[in-house]
This record gives sequence, C-alpha cells and structure tokens, in this order.
Amino acid sequence: MIHGKKQAHDSHDTIYLKITSVLLMKKLLIFGVGLIGGSVALKAREQKLFSEIVGVSRAGGTDLNYFVANNMLDYISSNIPEDVSSADMILIATPVAQTQSILKKIYPNLLKNTIITDVGSTKLNVLNEAKLNLKDKYNQFIGSHPIAGSEKNGAGAAQLDLFKNKNIIITEEDLSSTVAQKKLTLFWSSLGGIVSKMTAKEHDQIFSTVSHLPHLLAFNLVNLINKKKNKEVLLNFAASGFRDFSRIAASSPEMWRDICLANKDSILQDLILFEKEICELKSFLELNELANLEKYLKNASTTRKKWSE
Amino acid sequence: MIHGKKQAHDSHDTIYLKITSVLLMKKLLIFGVGLIGGSVALKAREQKLFSEIVGVSRAGGTDLNYFVANNMLDYISSNIPEDVSSADMILIATPVAQTQSILKKIYPNLLKNTIITDVGSTKLNVLNEAKLNLKDKYNQFIGSHPIAGSEKNGAGAAQLDLFKNKNIIITEEDLSSTVAQKKLTLFWSSLGGIVSKMTAKEHDQIFSTVSHLPHLLAFNLVNLINKKKNKEVLLNFAASGFRDFSRIAASSPEMWRDICLANKDSILQDLILFEKEICELKSFLELNELANLEKYLKNASTTRKKWSE
Repeated sequence: MIHGKKQAHDSHDTIYLKITSVLLMKKLLIFGVGLIGGSVALKAREQKLFSEIVGVSRAGGTDLNYFVANNMLDYISSNIPEDVSSADMILIATPVAQTQSILKKIYPNLLKNTIITDVGSTKLNVLNEAKLNLKDKYNQFIGSHPIAGSEKNGAGAAQLDLFKNKNIIITEEDLSSTVAQKKLTLFWSSLGGIVSKMTAKEHDQIFSTVSHLPHLLAFNLVNLINKKKNKEVLLNFAASGFRDFSRIAASSPEMWRDICLANKDSILQDLILFEKEICELKSFLELNELANLEKYLKNASTTRKKWSE
Repeated sequence: MIHGKKQAHDSHDTIYLKITSVLLMKKLLIFGVGLIGGSVALKAREQKLFSEIVGVSRAGGTDLNYFVANNMLDYISSNIPEDVSSADMILIATPVAQTQSILKKIYPNLLKNTIITDVGSTKLNVLNEAKLNLKDKYNQFIGSHPIAGSEKNGAGAAQLDLFKNKNIIITEEDLSSTVAQKKLTLFWSSLGGIVSKMTAKEHDQIFSTVSHLPHLLAFNLVNLINKKKNKEVLLNFAASGFRDFSRIAASSPEMWRDICLANKDSILQDLILFEKEICELKSFLELNELANLEKYLKNASTTRKKWSE
C-alpha cells in the first residue's frame, strides 16, 4: 500500500511515534557520512538511539576527523569486518554506485539480527543488489528513501532536523523481515520522519515522475542556455522563475548519473511522456488554438495552486 | 546594446540613479492596477513622482475603491478621454491582450509630450500594435518590461519595493523619442529598478529562453502528473525539488496564453531546442553512455552553481 502525507497518521501501515529519548541499539555503522549520513548521525546522537555511532570514510570523501572531534561520530572505522560484526544497524549512505561493493564487503561478517538499510533515491536496483550479495541474509535488508534531499552535499551540509516531518519510504517485499521493518520504522520516526511502506517498484515509478524527471528537465534547460551564443546575456537576465526552476540543476552530477542508471526504464518512460506534453503544447501554439492552450495552462495552474495549499 | 545586472553600473546605456524625492510630472494614468500597476502606484506615490495618480478599472478586474480609500490612487477615471488628454505618462499594465484596444482608445486624446509605456513580458507585438494604433504618435511609445514578476497577481499583491534592484528593460527602436526614453529611464530608476535598453526583437528572444520556456515546461510537468492514474499519490510524495521547479506553473493561465501568442515564434524555436536536449539525454541513457551523461549533467550543474554565486 502507498500512503501520502495526508493519510500518514491514520494508516496502520504508517507508524509515526514521538520519541524523545530511546536507546534503540548498541552500534550504528554508517558508510558515507555525507548530507544524509551526517544528518542521521547528528540526530541519532541527540536522540541517544545508539551507544556508538561509527563512520566509514571513503576515498575522496569528506575528512571525518572533524566529526569525531565534535562528537558526532565515536570513531572512524579502521577495521570494517570487526565493526560490521558488532553493528546492530548498518546505514549505507554513499553514492548509489558504491552500494554493491559495500554489500559484498559486509556480507561475511553480518550477524543475523543486524539490520541493513540504504538511503538511495532508487530502490529496485538496491534490492536486486542486496538479493545478489546478501544471499541468505537478504531479508535483513530493508531499503530506505528519506525524502529530504538538497542540492548541497557532503557532511558539512548535515542538519540536525533534516528529517523532521519529511516522508521516509521503506521498502516492503515478500521476503522482508517484519522485525527489521518495525525497528527501521522506529529508527526513522525517532529521527523525526513520517514513515510509509511500499514496494520498490512503486517507489521507483513515483519518484521518476515527481523527482527524477524535474531534475533532468532542469539540467536540460541549463544546457540549452549553455549552448546559446548569448549565454552570458541570457544568464544576466534570468530572474526568479529561472532561479527556482533550475535550482535542482545545481545537484551532484555523480549522484544523478547513478540515479539515471538505476531508474533508467521509468525515467525513459517519463521523458517520452514529457515529450508528448511538449508536442501537445506546440500544436496548440502552431494552430493558434487559444482556448485549448488556456485550458491546458489552467489545468496545470489549478493543480499546482491546490498542491501548495 | 544589451546589459546584464553585473555590467549595469558601468555602462553608459544603463542609468541607475538614487533619487529620494523628485516630482517628475503631473499626472500618471494607469490602465490595469494589478500586481505591477499597483506596485508602480505605491512606489510612485512614496517617491512623489506625480501630483496625481489615476487608475482605470477594467471589467472583471480588482475593485479599485480600496486603493483610492488608501491614497494609493487619487481617483478612478470616470472620463478616460479627459484623463488621457491631461496625462504626462500613461502606463498600460493590463493583460497583454488588452493593449491594442487601449492604444486605440487613447490615441485621439494624446498630447504630443505624453509618454506611453506598457509592462508586458513581450515587446515585439506591443511595438507593432503601437505602430498601428498610435500612428504619427508612435515615437511617444517606449515599451517597458520590469523583470519583477510573481506567480501572484492582482492589486492585492502589490508591493512597495517590487522593482528594487530589479532589471527593467525599455525598448530602443529607430523611431523612439530620445526625450521619452530618458524620462522613462528616470521613472523606473526612481522606482528602484536597474534600467537597460535593447530592441524588442532581442528582448523577446532572451525572455523566450530564460522565462517563457521554463514557465511552459513547468506547466508541462504538472499536466504530465495530472494525466497519471496515481496523480494524488504522486502529489503526496512530491517534495522540495518539485515545489521549486513547478512554482511558476501556478502563474495566471490568461497571462501565459497571451505571452505564448505574442512570442510564438521564439517560444516554438526554444521548445524545439528543448526537445533536442531531451533527445540527447535519452540517447545517453539508452546507450548507457555514462561518461557522456555525467559530463552533460556536470555542464549544467557548473553553470547553475556559478550563476547563483
């Protein structure tokens, strides 16, 4: 089942608990202490959810010593097998392309009650990777997607309340462990999120349309301008409409390359649907169908106004 | 010549004066006291630019009595020919489609020193209409485009500082009166704007790309969602990326129908260029050209980041 914000508090599939201080588990191991991983660490620390929060640094990633010095992390892992074997929860918050090698790396040392989750913007690919690499322990993996992005990235952008009242989707598949699902729901709720469950397939189709597509269109628009001879003049006169529309085009190219790859089919379908919208609009213009044009614009305007209320 | 914000203070074509109180002229007559017309009235009154500010109401427009009661307007015109013949400046700030009939209406009573301007988002069509309808008085018409829009409209949305540090473009054509251009520059500068001059053709091409195109793409995205069966679920999970991207899709359908019509050729060209961008992106995806895909995304990301600095 799928739940939106409005139904979140009424549904039995959606659990939202106000918890001020719960020691949930002993050790949280975070691969990828960036915007999301760092914000998890900050809030989990404040909420005292774990007795230890441990970060794994990656080549080219942020230097994590600062975060240890500031007590956001207890230490930086120097022995990953050991930390994996003593972790109650493992959070993979690296760029999506690295998930597979991390799953491979953690598999041998995983205890049977350890919960593994990720925070990727796509879920089908991650579940497939988990199935392949975690084998008999696949049921311990539940995918997460906190809808709390930002065009900023890196641990320096981490915020204590990044997840407050934000939708967090966790995956619900036939093999998912019910206990792991419940614990993960409690975890995200404790960080302030509103948790909904759905299948990975449903998830990926939804986010192709409401997130991946607008991101790619914003990249498209900026590149259209990039290719014009009077690019500098255009950018000088670009105002608030352009600013808001294209804000998401400042997002990480690496992350969006990975998202495109991971959700390729849904994204290609949505790009084709978008081309149809352009064609419809072009034909109203070319044929001077003013009434149809106004109706088209009004349909969008009404929906958008209603959405923001 | 075209000038952007950054060059604004250095260029001899761009005049930006800090004027705290100048009585520029006697009477300002405003057709269309909406967001723009209302904001002009508010600031012109504060700056004491005119001894009288008079509004013309339109059928279906905002009731202007409130604005008279609050001293934003001196009165609502009950005798348009008389007010036209005593106006030093006439501002046409109605939806673009009404400009032509207003030009026809004012022509017989226009004095030879009266400046006529508009605030439309397109300029070629307005100048053509002015040429046809103002005939021998065409040189008194200078087009204006204050880059200070909002998805809100109506006089109730008027703001005292709507034009502060905003680009205002005025048209520069062979027949334009130099005196009228200078006075109009002083007028907009006094309202806080940064004035640039360019031809109507240059203007329309620039704003097709940086404003009209993103608006239409935002309408397109919302309508794509409108047509999906799971529309409500999609809107429930739409987050900040969608919010900012589609903000401009809440804009007035009537206004955007008129803009589409007025700048049809440039807009159609830009929609075709945009389709090419989508095709390029689709082909990277279909052919798994990851390096090209990342390069494409990075080009946009770099430009967008630089723009906002």
